[in-house]
Amino acid sequence: MLTLYNDQHALHHGKTEMFRGELVPCFEVPARADYVLQELKRRGLGTIEAPGAFDDAAITRVHAPRYIEFLRLAWAEWVALDPANAQRDALPSYWPIRGFRSDVLPASFAARMGLFSFDAGTPLTAGTWAAARAGAACAFTAARRLLQGERATFALTRPPGHHAGADFFGGYCFLNNAAIAAQTLRDAGVQRVAVLDIDYHHGNGTQAIFYERADVQFTSIHGDPHTEYPYYLGYADERGAGAGLGFNHNLPLARGSDFSAWRAALHTALQGVAAVKPGALVVSLGLDTFVGDPISGFTLQSADYLQVGADLARAGLPTVFVFEGGYAVAEVGVNAVNVLEGFAQAAG
Amino acid sequence: MLTLYNDQHALHHGKTEMFRGELVPCFEVPARADYVLQELKRRGLGTIEAPGAFDDAAITRVHAPRYIEFLRLAWAEWVALDPANAQRDALPSYWPIRGFRSDVLPASFAARMGLFSFDAGTPLTAGTWAAARAGAACAFTAARRLLQGERATFALTRPPGHHAGADFFGGYCFLNNAAIAAQTLRDAGVQRVAVLDIDYHHGNGTQAIFYERADVQFTSIHGDPHTEYPYYLGYADERGAGAGLGFNHNLPLARGSDFSAWRAALHTALQGVAAVKPGALVVSLGLDTFVGDPISGFTLQSADYLQVGADLARAGLPTVFVFEGGYAVAEVGVNAVNVLEGFAQAAG
Ligand SMILES: [Zn+2]
Ligand SMILES: [Zn+2]
Repeated sequence: MLTLYNDQHALHHGKTEMFRGELVPCFEVPARADYVLQELKRRGLGTIEAPGAFDDAAITRVHAPRYIEFLRLAWAEWVALDPANAQRDALPSYWPIRGFRSDVLPASFAARMGLFSFDAGTPLTAGTWAAARAGAACAFTAARRLLQGERATFALTRPPGHHAGADFFGGYCFLNNAAIAAQTLRDAGVQRVAVLDIDYHHGNGTQAIFYERADVQFTSIHGDPHTEYPYYLGYADERGAGAGLGFNHNLPLARGSDFSAWRAALHTALQGVAAVKPGALVVSLGLDTFVGDPISGFTLQSADYLQVGADLARAGLPTVFVFEGGYAVAEVGVNAVNVLEGFAQAAG
Repeated sequence: MLTLYNDQHALHHGKTEMFRGELVPCFEVPARADYVLQELKRRGLGTIEAPGAFDDAAITRVHAPRYIEFLRLAWAEWVALDPANAQRDALPSYWPIRGFRSDVLPASFAARMGLFSFDAGTPLTAGTWAAARAGAACAFTAARRLLQGERATFALTRPPGHHAGADFFGGYCFLNNAAIAAQTLRDAGVQRVAVLDIDYHHGNGTQAIFYERADVQFTSIHGDPHTEYPYYLGYADERGAGAGLGFNHNLPLARGSDFSAWRAALHTALQGVAAVKPGALVVSLGLDTFVGDPISGFTLQSADYLQVGADLARAGLPTVFVFEGGYAVAEVGVNAVNVLEGFAQAAG
């Protein structure tokens, strides 16, 4: 297992997020990735490298140019509004819901913040662009190294990516690392890629990016959006559209579901993956399915993640793992590396 | 000038709103309406009455039933989540922007808050529904009394209404009082109604409600949405759609515009109103065009509002005034009543 580590991830460090109507300390913190790195080293699970040379073109293959332009300049614009903003994260306050326009790019920075986001829980900080861009480089390199013969690679980065759409951030995500990895595999000639999202939360961004495409299948196992974030997407009747009809699979589970129910869904998901005969697999690896997660509702135990890794290995596909959520900070390292170790052992 | 006064307005009293990424005290406070009432009484400008009997049917003529149901039960749901919420306003944290679903009504209360709103600046409080519903009764009664022979009536209520759409709140607005007044006039047989919105902010909710209709013309003079709230609507190229094409007129003005520029826009607006030969006029009366307004950017002086009233009177139409924004609290009474007195004097 080769790990591509984003050593700039801590440049993204939000102070507060809106949570149930109040500003509270961020759940998505740098220590998350630090614990995973530490556990990887402790177990000696393969080599750890920095990402290779990287061109923004890999990002614009899945994200809109006007969105990338916004992210790139956002912090400078925010501080230009008021020097005191240097001490404050930027959070949006209004959004273009149904009936509003998205075609006009307002001059107002605050308005563009809202245009390109869907929640008030994802602070944009001084180092967000640098950290997110380096994360995209990890995902890109993880895909490229797979093509060069690795059985599996791991993009260890934050902020996470699976909630980010082609032109919006939210859910702590800015650039969709899993989508960038999948598109990189496609662009290198892999005819069909399967993305399997096992984060507790539905991967709305990844789904939206590939919804009308048959060349990238998307499958997600997650908390029922009727009660769980992101609420407005992730229902079982979302099957894809146009050429992509039949290539999108959502497997929502009730809050409180245990590993037995979750593993049954995983087997269903892997049957669907096998059915389309992909050339590679991208796993959005969230660990917020853990029983101790502070904002989620499944009850997986740490030992279960070894089994998860082994089940994924039996799909027999070259696999890119991309680090997503998981907010039980002290346990996220053990749980993530259990998946990778379970995979490595079963893959032989 | 007959005033219909909402004596329950103070039941809606938000504590904080999101403003430039921080929670700050609300700008839209009960004292706003108190100052207007006091000034009306001081000048003896006509009688002041409570609204008459009122049926929710007048609300559902312009608002979606599932939205009304949400508003009616929202506070009880919010407190049921956690008894401590009784001391906290409810604010949404996520929104269904482009690509998300609005057809599913999530079980989660927080998700429905976001589904039915477009900003994080409009707290929902214990008395919001009661205050807003009594405001709708004022608007309804103001329209009915016009039909019974009044030359002009004034719905003195808050929270304001013009940002509220058929199924969303935002911009301090929950029920669209101006739209309810216009629809009430239509339902009583007035063939065409003109709505003229002179609040500093574009009346996006009113525009959206009538956008595809020719029987209610909508005209708005407001700060350019490129730099001013609500940002995502209010541009000059929005002319209506379908049967309503040509019945929507936006007259955005640059931040910093003075009364001379503003009055020229008013004359353009009134020419457009006259051109469609309406049977009645509804004025969304915002006073945040005032030079001293803390969140707006035009430079009208208090004396200018007498002129505004006189100009409106010369349209020669039965007129319902509906109180909207204006956050220079100490001056909002003088400015609002100047419009009404200027109107009354010119109407003779
Ligand atoms: Zn998650
Ligand atoms: Zn206003």
